[in-house]
Amino acid sequence: MKGTDLAFASAAEIAAQVRQRELTARQVAEACLARIEALQPRLNCFIQILSDIAFEQASSVDDAIRSGRTAGPLAGVPVAIKDIIDVAGVTTTSASHRWLHRQAETDAALAERLRRAGAILIGKTNLHECAFGVTNINPHYGPVHNPWDPRRIPGGSSGGSAAAVAAGLCAGAVGTDTGGSIRIPASLCGVAGIKPTYGLVPLDGVIPLAWTLDHAGPLARTVRDAALLLDVMAGTVEDDARSLVRALDAAGPLSSRGASGARGVRVGIPRKFFWEHLDIEVETIATTAVETLRSLGAGVRDVEVPYASFAGSAVSVILSTEATAFHEQHLRTHPAEYGEDVRTRLERGFFLSGTDYITALRAQGFLHREFLRAFEEADVLVMPTTQAAASPIDDDPSSASTTSLAMSVHLTRFTNPFNLTGFPALSLPCGFTKEGLPVGLQIVGRPRDEALVLRVGKAYESATEWHTRRPPLH
Amino acid sequence: MKGTDLAFASAAEIAAQVRQRELTARQVAEACLARIEALQPRLNCFIQILSDIAFEQASSVDDAIRSGRTAGPLAGVPVAIKDIIDVAGVTTTSASHRWLHRQAETDAALAERLRRAGAILIGKTNLHECAFGVTNINPHYGPVHNPWDPRRIPGGSSGGSAAAVAAGLCAGAVGTDTGGSIRIPASLCGVAGIKPTYGLVPLDGVIPLAWTLDHAGPLARTVRDAALLLDVMAGTVEDDARSLVRALDAAGPLSSRGASGARGVRVGIPRKFFWEHLDIEVETIATTAVETLRSLGAGVRDVEVPYASFAGSAVSVILSTEATAFHEQHLRTHPAEYGEDVRTRLERGFFLSGTDYITALRAQGFLHREFLRAFEEADVLVMPTTQAAASPIDDDPSSASTTSLAMSVHLTRFTNPFNLTGFPALSLPCGFTKEGLPVGLQIVGRPRDEALVLRVGKAYESATEWHTRRPPLH
Repeated sequence: MKGTDLAFASAAEIAAQVRQRELTARQVAEACLARIEALQPRLNCFIQILSDIAFEQASSVDDAIRSGRTAGPLAGVPVAIKDIIDVAGVTTTSASHRWLHRQAETDAALAERLRRAGAILIGKTNLHECAFGVTNINPHYGPVHNPWDPRRIPGGSSGGSAAAVAAGLCAGAVGTDTGGSIRIPASLCGVAGIKPTYGLVPLDGVIPLAWTLDHAGPLARTVRDAALLLDVMAGTVEDDARSLVRALDAAGPLSSRGASGARGVRVGIPRKFFWEHLDIEVETIATTAVETLRSLGAGVRDVEVPYASFAGSAVSVILSTEATAFHEQHLRTHPAEYGEDVRTRLERGFFLSGTDYITALRAQGFLHREFLRAFEEADVLVMPTTQAAASPIDDDPSSASTTSLAMSVHLTRFTNPFNLTGFPALSLPCGFTKEGLPVGLQIVGRPRDEALVLRVGKAYESATEWHTRRPPLH
Repeated sequence: MKGTDLAFASAAEIAAQVRQRELTARQVAEACLARIEALQPRLNCFIQILSDIAFEQASSVDDAIRSGRTAGPLAGVPVAIKDIIDVAGVTTTSASHRWLHRQAETDAALAERLRRAGAILIGKTNLHECAFGVTNINPHYGPVHNPWDPRRIPGGSSGGSAAAVAAGLCAGAVGTDTGGSIRIPASLCGVAGIKPTYGLVPLDGVIPLAWTLDHAGPLARTVRDAALLLDVMAGTVEDDARSLVRALDAAGPLSSRGASGARGVRVGIPRKFFWEHLDIEVETIATTAVETLRSLGAGVRDVEVPYASFAGSAVSVILSTEATAFHEQHLRTHPAEYGEDVRTRLERGFFLSGTDYITALRAQGFLHREFLRAFEEADVLVMPTTQAAASPIDDDPSSASTTSLAMSVHLTRFTNPFNLTGFPALSLPCGFTKEGLPVGLQIVGRPRDEALVLRVGKAYESATEWHTRRPPLH
């Protein structure tokens, strides 16, 4: 397995070959770093490439295997990490000048779990500054380019992570998601990305954006790889009863547990709000995806998600207040270390009152309870991840802050309700526009029901070939 | 046991006599209601006297005993409830016109536990409007008068509860405490009052003031009665391992558990902040109390409570923001239903920003951790409950709101740090000024260490006679 084959191999395949000594972790790292070097100038996915750390980790994996010690489930798998997450010895920039002098002393909890599982931390990915935006147009490090059309945005804020996975620069990547920041770039770059239930993946060593809404999760080219990475990050990979990837494998067509694919799953379609104001191509593609789920035996029905349209306002107030509170001191003393876009957004938080914030937190509790009612008649909810495919990069500085804010309102509409309520939500590719841009389907589950969300996602993926398409990077 | 004897009998004595059929619950209720009728015009402790409910409950207790069924640990014990706590079928006024039309459908969780333990809910006590203040000067229901000198305030906001216990109008009472509202009136009225650890007593059915700081707890004439009432309210009275009153009885001089009184307990004296700016009489009295503890075998030492002086600001911001958020809608539509004092205080909350509130919440977490460090060198902390004894009632409406605010700053100085951190804190009488006004001693413990706080309090009480003095009400 070499070259493009290796670049687009699954995490599970790479780990199997490394463990069986058909491939060394070092060979994987070398191939991966070579591809990054070749494509970084065109895509700008990375802020830092961790060659030294990658080779050190590869040696340690190879040594372990040569000496017969157990190798982890991600042995030799190259994983990219959003540069808002600590890796020991490396500056966590958050794609801002705010953090330039802060070198991480220890790995974030999730990074340490990935390392222990054998993953090779290959680089720190570019993001929307401080994760506060969805375009990934960054005044300090330049924009990330969408691999399907480099003139377009990859979505954000985990745009570097999504683009790197889509371009075959790593087998999987870690993102964070406060309003949609894993799922939006997954959708716009044509990869799988899951925001798990609030609290499932620990955030120690992750720079906060808004702690009430912050989540970390994986991006990968297949649902099963996303499940495997999530399992490692959540600390459940070795736990027979809780492992997501074991549940997924058991739920395949040859399942011994009885649960198979999408058959019998009640798929709720929340037509109001979540299927409104769609780009016509997105609507057609997502509707076809729902028909595919029906053909796989799912029981498709319309459902109502009560008060869905209120979620965005509550997210906006909570996110703005918490982000501003977190940055307040530095913002007052060193405003020039933030780009205009994010500085302007942070300054908006000063205009929100304590009672506004409390009202939004109370709305959060109320909406969590109300949203659960939609799950009385459905096991998962399905909708497009975003209203439209990737838009062009508009990096005119004079309109940067208004464009960024407008794009956030637009792109997070279907994703941020599940940050507010903390429900698990997966985005996976469900088709391409005539211009060749990916479209994402969002599958949402009950709290802690990642297993079902992933199972339905994998059933859909197995019946389609969108996830096998490669971006035109030759 | 009749007349004054019964009025000042302990809860445990009353329950024992009722259970042994030496006294009926009805006789207790009659005597209690007669005394309330006689003294209510002078003290104004009650907003509502629950004669019907009391007689109904007394009959049910007497019936149970006559028919040989088990009677609870508070069988026939008259208990007064602060009128911010729901009793089924009764309006919970919160001493405001804001709630006049809201009749409670069910008992608050703690009221229901008291009833099930056999307590007679004898009346709803007067309070500082909405519990937002410490003078108990109330524009709607008139001021509560201190039994030791009716020209003086009883402290607040649970002033009616404390005065009723001090005057022998009930064996015990329930209060709430957001910045000191149990301990301050306990101190100023010469009774025992404990604010337990945050969360120990459920607040379902209690109108919030500020949910991050709100606590409910008992007031009684002895530490043991306070422990018994708290045990019932916390739901631990029947639980051998967790019962506070059993631990207290086991820790007496004839203890079989080894732990005895105050012997060997490390008593920390936080001289900085908590022993500063004291009235000279209070300082002398409290210092003598510490010497008493030392003579009982406690290891007295000076300790530092880090950052103690910051707690008050954090409390002020959290309390103000949450109270205003809770009342916001009604305050905008029906401002005239609040008295000027509390309306003015609620309006202050509109000037606090979301980032102010979040900063205060972060300070709370920080101070909780820092305060715990004081407990590395001490098992309990001891200090005066208030800087001075009860001040005169100043009910000049032109200065009502400024006086109220100033008194809050003054009287909550030593109490509100333990609302912020949620540590258990007991106030009990430790002497009297030359004018005959009680002075309170505050004993603070580690989270969930009510047992030790009560044990040290009982040891002190057993060695002194302050708790046996009666106010001059003849």
